[in-house]
Amino acid sequence: AVVFDPKEHQHLRYNPLRDSWVLVSAHRMNRPWAGQVERPPEERVPRNDPKNPLCPGNTRANGEVNPDYDSTFVFDNDFPALQPHAPDPGCCQHPLFQSKAARGVCKVMCFHPHSDVTLPLMKKEEVLTVIDKWVQLVEELGTTYSWVQIFENKGAVMGCSNPHPHCQVWASNFLPTEPALSDRHQRAFYQEHGEPLLLQYVRQEVHRQERIVVESSDWLVVVPYWATWPYQTLLLPRRHVLRLNDLTADEKEGLADIMKRLLTKYDNLFQVSFPYSMGWHGAPTGPHLKEDNSHWQLHAHYYPPLLRSATVKKFMVGYEMLALEQRDLTPEQAAEKLRNLSDTHYKDAGN
Amino acid sequence: AVVFDPKEHQHLRYNPLRDSWVLVSAHRMNRPWAGQVERPPEERVPRNDPKNPLCPGNTRANGEVNPDYDSTFVFDNDFPALQPHAPDPGCCQHPLFQSKAARGVCKVMCFHPHSDVTLPLMKKEEVLTVIDKWVQLVEELGTTYSWVQIFENKGAVMGCSNPHPHCQVWASNFLPTEPALSDRHQRAFYQEHGEPLLLQYVRQEVHRQERIVVESSDWLVVVPYWATWPYQTLLLPRRHVLRLNDLTADEKEGLADIMKRLLTKYDNLFQVSFPYSMGWHGAPTGPHLKEDNSHWQLHAHYYPPLLRSATVKKFMVGYEMLALEQRDLTPEQAAEKLRNLSDTHYKDAGN
Ligand SMILES: O=P(O)(O)O[C@H]1O[C@H](CO)[C@@H](O)[C@H](O)[C@H]1O
Ligand SMILES: O=P(O)(O)O[C@H]1O[C@H](CO)[C@@H](O)[C@H](O)[C@H]1O
Repeated sequence: AVVFDPKEHQHLRYNPLRDSWVLVSAHRMNRPWAGQVERPPEERVPRNDPKNPLCPGNTRANGEVNPDYDSTFVFDNDFPALQPHAPDPGCCQHPLFQSKAARGVCKVMCFHPHSDVTLPLMKKEEVLTVIDKWVQLVEELGTTYSWVQIFENKGAVMGCSNPHPHCQVWASNFLPTEPALSDRHQRAFYQEHGEPLLLQYVRQEVHRQERIVVESSDWLVVVPYWATWPYQTLLLPRRHVLRLNDLTADEKEGLADIMKRLLTKYDNLFQVSFPYSMGWHGAPTGPHLKEDNSHWQLHAHYYPPLLRSATVKKFMVGYEMLALEQRDLTPEQAAEKLRNLSDTHYKDAGN
Repeated sequence: AVVFDPKEHQHLRYNPLRDSWVLVSAHRMNRPWAGQVERPPEERVPRNDPKNPLCPGNTRANGEVNPDYDSTFVFDNDFPALQPHAPDPGCCQHPLFQSKAARGVCKVMCFHPHSDVTLPLMKKEEVLTVIDKWVQLVEELGTTYSWVQIFENKGAVMGCSNPHPHCQVWASNFLPTEPALSDRHQRAFYQEHGEPLLLQYVRQEVHRQERIVVESSDWLVVVPYWATWPYQTLLLPRRHVLRLNDLTADEKEGLADIMKRLLTKYDNLFQVSFPYSMGWHGAPTGPHLKEDNSHWQLHAHYYPPLLRSATVKKFMVGYEMLALEQRDLTPEQAAEKLRNLSDTHYKDAGN
């Protein structure tokens, strides 16, 4: 009989955070690509564009003028998907036509005054400032809102409409679909095994040594066993930590360092400012602050779309939208590629 | 107090097929778009391109020569994500590192010998031939495989690597994530209400008259109450039908007619060959053929990405990937726009 080889033989892998499966068909990388090619990310973003509404001192769409900020800068999204005072759609609805109130706030946070300085090109202290600001936002918005979603869309291919390095923070009075799923499955695992799912996962990954991308005394980055995006990674602390604002000063410094290393590797992979969506998931906040959330472990998901090169991405379309997600290389292959890349950014290499 | 207006006030809507929610923030359509613009779909696809591996008489990547087909043409995908004989990854795995065998087949089906004749431009009898072929494939592959996923990726923006009108059929020995979810929630509804979820839904939509796009004596197309993609639609028969191969001859003719009308409206919306991913969901097959599947109702999902114009799509990124899906116009607004468009294709308008 033929011996199973994950690189050669399609198989399904289980995602314990979502209770779903992904189809791994690594042999698909052999097919030729005659489909859509993306424009490569702009390599020459001007440091200060007088027409860019995110630059220091410039005027935004609503007429407000940005301060002359010299580190991070947080402001309210001018076109928020969530506002604090939307009226309630009302009760007593038909089971197939249910709606409910959604309340929240949407903020934007510029990482740096210069449009051409992305996170991997920032100094470690500058990345630390971003992390401190994240902590502060989770702390502030988390006093009232159930969920504070920090996320970064990077690159035009990820729908990012402005090249200036920034992230968004959308806080809501409800637990959105993805964290609700993850909460449910972490809780069930904790009840069954008496240990947080992601802590046991960290231990196993350190033991198995197959999917590690970068690590430090406090942090670990792996291509998760169940990754769907080609170079998807999971970043998490080794210690049991519920939320960003529970990190120690050392852990925050370690985070700045490991983020810089991960994002440098990402940029080095195709020698391009690597597009992705990323975001933080930690224990819920607001009314959930007084519940026992020991089943939670803080983590960040990185979902980068590129598959073959700076211009050929993975399309999550037909089969993926209607049936299940499918990937074209194994998580182990992706991890090995990323692990072997340099920690020095290709733009810094001459220095 | 302010009266709730779904066009003005963000709210969540429930998707009973997936047991998930979507955030509707219709006021977001007011924001300016400075982000990525897609290349508009090619308007002048050559009828017969000697280099196109899907055209009649041409040679494919694996050296096989296509017959000189003059209607539909079905062949095995040259780079299948699912193959019939993959070995089993084996049992007794760690709960966080679970994999299982995936077996199946992947087929491609050309709709028409001419590369420039998409479904809405085909004659009704030609669309009927496509439907008959779908029925035959469900019948054949369904004898052994649990799930037969028919899907069409249309347009480069949907990862379609060949402009020649075609769809794919991936059959598997397992129930993929999306149909498994839909199976579970249709079953639960049936047990509680004694009526298939989607049949009750059809009745309600006909009664409410708010989201209908096109209808006939046998079929209904609505922008579902819980739609996530801007112009997403749900196509389904009015009668209780489990699978494509249960349709009567009249219903198949009616389907050809309503597909042509829907797809013509789609093309007319932005006067462009409208990109989408679509696919059929019906009761599971193979070993499930001998189970009671009365809770199922056959339906097709259309997921088109365009939002504002032929070149500006909706990006399902950051918040959508990490938290929950968000839409920028109400399903009622989308339905009204589509409903009011002509049934005559803009390319035929001069005839
Ligand atoms: O098989 P194709 O059309 O080349 O490939 C396309 O559809 C597949 C199934 O939806 C996806 O997995 C691929 O990412 C996409 O590019
Ligand atoms: O707010 P932005 O960056 O303009 O918008 C982007 O991110 C949002 C949140 O992920 C998405 O809903 C939009 O589709 C996307 O274009």
